[in-house]
Amino acid sequence: MVVGFLFLFFFFSSPILTHSSPSLFDYQCGLTTAGWSIPPPPEDVNLKQVIAVIRHGDRTAWNGSSCWPGDDYIWSCDLVHGQMPVDTKVEKERGTAGRIFEKIFLPTNEEMHGNCSVAQLTTIGYKQHLANGGSLNSAYVKNGFLTPSLDPSQVFIRSDDIPRTILSAQSLMDGMFPQDGKCEDNGDDGCTQFVPLYTRDTMYDNMEANADLCPKVTEYQTQFYESTTWLNHLKTTIEVVNNISNTIGFNISDNFEHFCDCLITHYCHNASWPDKLTEDLALSGLDEMVWMSYNSLKYPSVQENARAGIGFLLKDIWKNFNRSVNGEDYEKFSLYSGHDTTLIQLLVALGIDEGIWPPYSSMMLFELYSTSTAPAAVRVLYNGKIKTLPFCNGQELCSYETFSNYLSTVTPPDDYQKFCQV
Amino acid sequence: MVVGFLFLFFFFSSPILTHSSPSLFDYQCGLTTAGWSIPPPPEDVNLKQVIAVIRHGDRTAWNGSSCWPGDDYIWSCDLVHGQMPVDTKVEKERGTAGRIFEKIFLPTNEEMHGNCSVAQLTTIGYKQHLANGGSLNSAYVKNGFLTPSLDPSQVFIRSDDIPRTILSAQSLMDGMFPQDGKCEDNGDDGCTQFVPLYTRDTMYDNMEANADLCPKVTEYQTQFYESTTWLNHLKTTIEVVNNISNTIGFNISDNFEHFCDCLITHYCHNASWPDKLTEDLALSGLDEMVWMSYNSLKYPSVQENARAGIGFLLKDIWKNFNRSVNGEDYEKFSLYSGHDTTLIQLLVALGIDEGIWPPYSSMMLFELYSTSTAPAAVRVLYNGKIKTLPFCNGQELCSYETFSNYLSTVTPPDDYQKFCQV
Repeated sequence: MVVGFLFLFFFFSSPILTHSSPSLFDYQCGLTTAGWSIPPPPEDVNLKQVIAVIRHGDRTAWNGSSCWPGDDYIWSCDLVHGQMPVDTKVEKERGTAGRIFEKIFLPTNEEMHGNCSVAQLTTIGYKQHLANGGSLNSAYVKNGFLTPSLDPSQVFIRSDDIPRTILSAQSLMDGMFPQDGKCEDNGDDGCTQFVPLYTRDTMYDNMEANADLCPKVTEYQTQFYESTTWLNHLKTTIEVVNNISNTIGFNISDNFEHFCDCLITHYCHNASWPDKLTEDLALSGLDEMVWMSYNSLKYPSVQENARAGIGFLLKDIWKNFNRSVNGEDYEKFSLYSGHDTTLIQLLVALGIDEGIWPPYSSMMLFELYSTSTAPAAVRVLYNGKIKTLPFCNGQELCSYETFSNYLSTVTPPDDYQKFCQV
Repeated sequence: MVVGFLFLFFFFSSPILTHSSPSLFDYQCGLTTAGWSIPPPPEDVNLKQVIAVIRHGDRTAWNGSSCWPGDDYIWSCDLVHGQMPVDTKVEKERGTAGRIFEKIFLPTNEEMHGNCSVAQLTTIGYKQHLANGGSLNSAYVKNGFLTPSLDPSQVFIRSDDIPRTILSAQSLMDGMFPQDGKCEDNGDDGCTQFVPLYTRDTMYDNMEANADLCPKVTEYQTQFYESTTWLNHLKTTIEVVNNISNTIGFNISDNFEHFCDCLITHYCHNASWPDKLTEDLALSGLDEMVWMSYNSLKYPSVQENARAGIGFLLKDIWKNFNRSVNGEDYEKFSLYSGHDTTLIQLLVALGIDEGIWPPYSSMMLFELYSTSTAPAAVRVLYNGKIKTLPFCNGQELCSYETFSNYLSTVTPPDDYQKFCQV
């Protein structure tokens, strides 16, 4: 049943460590004291626009079931979603938020011990993106590119419709545009600022590959699991899964992705692991998950896979840049808040993946510049590193024409319905 | 495939009109100008506690797909969810809500035309529960039973974890405890009130029958669809479905529940229906949905069905009352915000259903009194009407002992796992 559970894994967006070096295990849990730093821009360029794509921060396990026999970790969640109804047409109700409802998960009658929802953002996750926001403030606010207070005409915020990604976007904004927390009554407008945060129905969202949007996604997946590439590798995966099962005395083959998620979430919260499970053994399992995830995205080719999957999001990003390049109105900064899968798929589509799972609060940046030699050029950053795009011959700045030419090979056509048919 | 689609219907919680009298169709859409009124208490009693169970207010369709050929209704949503991160342990961050993010659904790339999420609460829905809150204010606040400002030590709020039910609970609270909308800085505490709203993970929620909590739910459903009762009735349903399909020239048999939801949501928003579809014909279809829903809840008996299904919620309500009866601390007012199915299942379990689908913003009230003749007694109200409980011989006030004796027959045991096994 190994094929079965791995096939499901892709859609569940679980966080997985990817490398056999134990030091990377800490890396998976994300940064806490500082955000991902942003290297200074190249010389002689003029920043026009920035698009940030993030993965949510630290969270609880995404399956409420017990992780292994004897797992009795109690999850604790102080960070909650504050909520209220807002009528966007009734200005007078937008003055001051008089009452906020804190959404709290009842601690009883849950399979997950404690007071957390499954996959709820934690205070650690909040602080991770608060720190990322601080990095963005240093890079794009302190230099005057953006105004110090959050201005929706400059800043576009989008998230998929899931609490942890929404909270991550909000955390980042809190760090990028710090508030002093005081209520300064400014007359009719009151003292609460109301900021649009855009989302889509989950069914039609394109923050990651979506088989409802493009059924070809499922076809490619099915074909991958029938491919020689996968069948040749499967024996290795089965050996690793059996090895872990035999060592800990608990069969993980039916729910391997849940088990891997349990390892990460327990590790990042200093909760105990199964007896006898070493870090090296755990990493051998996580490596298998990574192998499958990255390789499935390259079937039948990187470009064809992206066109049916993450190409929809890439197209949104591309269109966003086009507005600037074409002299139309545009927001100088856009945030897209998604998942590990969002970033993995973007990295693979652009040919810049390193086979490393994106740790919590990972951040990818697309910067658009005008330069002395070209009207527009793009720089891509990932977790504080400049990523040179292979289709730009490894240059730090990729001319917009070259960038656009490549994006046309990894994005779906406008009338995608026929293209997506299976 | 009629059996197939009806089997799914139950879990989708669609709103259905139930009666062949056209005047009831308006009733399905819920009240707008005033809430459900609350009759005065009986004489010589002392109110101890109130538990309200509501259905969410008016909403958009719960399936984004087009309703029928030519359906081009554009949904419009001004009411959105305002959200922010809140750390319940950091008091200083709880002073004033400086920034609220308005969650707005992008109007492009959606199958539902417009800017609404599927099944999003509308401004009409907000006003319906605002009005219900006004009725509760008149009945329980103006007389001094509750303090005029929302006090979480007196008021317990629970909803399932779905935006429309959460917003409905918040709307009702806004009506029950009106705010003046002004920010009155009161020093360190700021001017925003933070109020807990409790929920559960959807997978483990008991606001309606839940097969994850109690697999016996599925067994009973399967058996119902194999029962003589259903098989004898099936022919009628097929005839009605075919009659509607033939009249409008569009086969609805594969997605009958979606079609019925479309009828209601379009009707309540003055959107057009398919040509040739009369109100009587529509009602004949809705009546079939109602027949199935109510009868399936009576299989294998009302009591046995409830014990596996809505009995979990009834047990929460019962335990809530028990705290008062046992002299423990308790909140004087509790709100449970759920769905049509929540109310249908409660009404059937208590033997007081009328075969009428609960219109939007329906409200059921359980009042606990002490009386001159009994230490505790219960009165049940539904949409402004006193419901006499058959197991209490039709008395307006049911002694707590009788009430408890009956509840023990429709609620699961504490160690429900074995009981629920199939």
